[in-house]
Amino acid sequence: MALIVQKYGGTSVGSIEKIGKVADKVCALAKSGDQVVVAVSAMSGETNRLLALASEMSEKPHSRELDVIISTGEQVTIALLTMALLDRGCDARSYTGTQIKMLTDSTHGKARIREVQCEAMREDLDAGRVVVVAGFQGVDEHGRITTLGRGGSDTTAVAIAAALKADECQIYTDVDGVYTTDPRVEPKARKLDHITFEEMLEMASLGSKVLQIRSVEFAGKYNVPLRVLHSFEEGSGTLIALEDDKVEQALISGIAFNRDEAQLTMAGVPDQPGVASKILGPITNANIEIDMIVQNVGADGCTDFTFTVHRNDYEVAHELLKKTSVELGAKAVIGDDKIVKISLVGVGMRSHAGIANTMFQTLADENINIRMISTSEIKVSVVVDEKYLELGVRSLHEAFGLDSDGQLSSLAG
Amino acid sequence: MALIVQKYGGTSVGSIEKIGKVADKVCALAKSGDQVVVAVSAMSGETNRLLALASEMSEKPHSRELDVIISTGEQVTIALLTMALLDRGCDARSYTGTQIKMLTDSTHGKARIREVQCEAMREDLDAGRVVVVAGFQGVDEHGRITTLGRGGSDTTAVAIAAALKADECQIYTDVDGVYTTDPRVEPKARKLDHITFEEMLEMASLGSKVLQIRSVEFAGKYNVPLRVLHSFEEGSGTLIALEDDKVEQALISGIAFNRDEAQLTMAGVPDQPGVASKILGPITNANIEIDMIVQNVGADGCTDFTFTVHRNDYEVAHELLKKTSVELGAKAVIGDDKIVKISLVGVGMRSHAGIANTMFQTLADENINIRMISTSEIKVSVVVDEKYLELGVRSLHEAFGLDSDGQLSSLAG
Repeated sequence: MALIVQKYGGTSVGSIEKIGKVADKVCALAKSGDQVVVAVSAMSGETNRLLALASEMSEKPHSRELDVIISTGEQVTIALLTMALLDRGCDARSYTGTQIKMLTDSTHGKARIREVQCEAMREDLDAGRVVVVAGFQGVDEHGRITTLGRGGSDTTAVAIAAALKADECQIYTDVDGVYTTDPRVEPKARKLDHITFEEMLEMASLGSKVLQIRSVEFAGKYNVPLRVLHSFEEGSGTLIALEDDKVEQALISGIAFNRDEAQLTMAGVPDQPGVASKILGPITNANIEIDMIVQNVGADGCTDFTFTVHRNDYEVAHELLKKTSVELGAKAVIGDDKIVKISLVGVGMRSHAGIANTMFQTLADENINIRMISTSEIKVSVVVDEKYLELGVRSLHEAFGLDSDGQLSSLAG
Repeated sequence: MALIVQKYGGTSVGSIEKIGKVADKVCALAKSGDQVVVAVSAMSGETNRLLALASEMSEKPHSRELDVIISTGEQVTIALLTMALLDRGCDARSYTGTQIKMLTDSTHGKARIREVQCEAMREDLDAGRVVVVAGFQGVDEHGRITTLGRGGSDTTAVAIAAALKADECQIYTDVDGVYTTDPRVEPKARKLDHITFEEMLEMASLGSKVLQIRSVEFAGKYNVPLRVLHSFEEGSGTLIALEDDKVEQALISGIAFNRDEAQLTMAGVPDQPGVASKILGPITNANIEIDMIVQNVGADGCTDFTFTVHRNDYEVAHELLKKTSVELGAKAVIGDDKIVKISLVGVGMRSHAGIANTMFQTLADENINIRMISTSEIKVSVVVDEKYLELGVRSLHEAFGLDSDGQLSSLAG
């Protein structure tokens, strides 16, 4: 008998018919003898409907009251799913975030979970009941309703799995797993059977939108095996877990990319201590997040300083940078919002040299110019012109043998 | 400084614009220095939308989970109203039934209030905050969400007013008060400035749909002055309170009527002990509510037994009665669903004779035949043919001087 926590997102519970199908799945699992907790999101479109209602009422809705209204979305789903389970002869009970006592801090709109109380859930599970929990929501120490931010239902599921020491946390979604890269860009992309938490974190932060990044962090921290599966198709999905020493790791697990970035360069800025913070200070003060940062020392005592921001922040950052460049006596400010970042991700990289070089060679063979490079222990990222995205991803996908199950032996050590 | 509990129903909060208007009113009252608690219903149409969703999911939705889903309706309203108040610079806080701890029994769908916890509300009120409470809902001792049944928001408001010992409980609705009779039947109907709890109970139970009957009982029991007012029009409404000895009571406060009844008679049934329960037993076993009952002893050892039921139950009750009449050897079963009940209500009746006689005489003068008569301490009801409803009500309204502020002196004892 296993204890399984399942999470179904908004599209998986987007209609009465789909909730019925979810109930069928949950019911079958429960009847096989497993203990089941199900966390659900609001029906797709519902959160936006409630947000629109709040925006109609108030130009800047009070965050505490906004949580009161949007948390009703999941409350509707838990009731509907529990009704459906009861109709199928599967004993079940619904819980709001307040009822289960998903204790969070009081940061309305993006609260962080502090503690999950398990007594009531344990009691239900031991009595053979399925526990249906409203995802995305919690309650603070004063009994006020909080929400965890968009995608927070994944985090709800992982937090419950961690608290109950569940055997597995299954995230049901509209894809059948994590892929080596986006199949819309590279049709030969292959579903991964397993991937490590670290790799998944890098993939997620680089724009693979399968899982919410906080839920992966959470799962890694508490070592909760996480599985991504398709809601309505058969398959074993992708298991995200700790690195397994016994299994030989692939060198590269996947290729992530991000089309949402823009590049800004301050060229010919006198190289002196504190220049980096002088350049970036005004940007971060404007609440603009910075991703990659690259600085080269030049021969003439000047340096070129380059960084990337979200494309939506490009215009504002550009203006700020122009002001700073005058103060610092820089030669020029150059910007480009037609760039993309492509990243190789894989824990195998740690113990094998030559990954970066193979990457650069592969791109050079295709005449793709690399504009920036940034590396971490399990990732190599490059920035290239936007028009090279598909060509770059496909050539790297082939070069690193991701098209098939094997890896190119020539790359090993 | 007074403590006022206000209740706004579904049509009063039926749109963003209307909620804004309610916020204006509440804000003005709070700024005048009064302490204010506001109980609200779901936006009109919302409860039905949620019920429809539940019905689509399940043929017979589980009552506990039904309460989980429909209680979201009021939760949306409290958040919107509180946002609107905060936007107007009026400090406010919202509470669900669970948060305020409106403790009820576990009868889902028609729970009864056991206790209202006041600490949090008192704290808010003392801090100058408006307290916004979700009407219609509560929580049982196990933390499960309950609802009080349709119209339960009135009861919520009265329960809170009783618990806080409020100076007045104001029920805002789409009429400007309680009338001597339905103005659609008698255009000369006059708004009453005050009426007693007992009279209001009789009026409510006889089909005046201004207030939910349970809320009036509750208000009477705890002596909470209740005022019915129009949500968006000026006026002092109707105050429902204890009988005031100092003010001379009107003989008759109002004329209520009920078009929803049907009459059934078992004629010529042998008069013997237990015959009443033999006739009514099968009817009540079928969950059919019986209103008036009249039995006359005849000369031949037989009796005619007549009662009224809701018109929707007429066919079923008729069939049941026919079966029973065979068993009891009755001569005939006669039924009529084209009847109405007209009632005079007034505490003044207690100390004055002649009310019933004036009523019968007035109807006789109009050639209206009375089919049944039933009396209580503060009420006289007659059943007449449906076609005489308007004529009967208008002639009685005039005969008892309800058209103007005075009462006919000739009636005074």
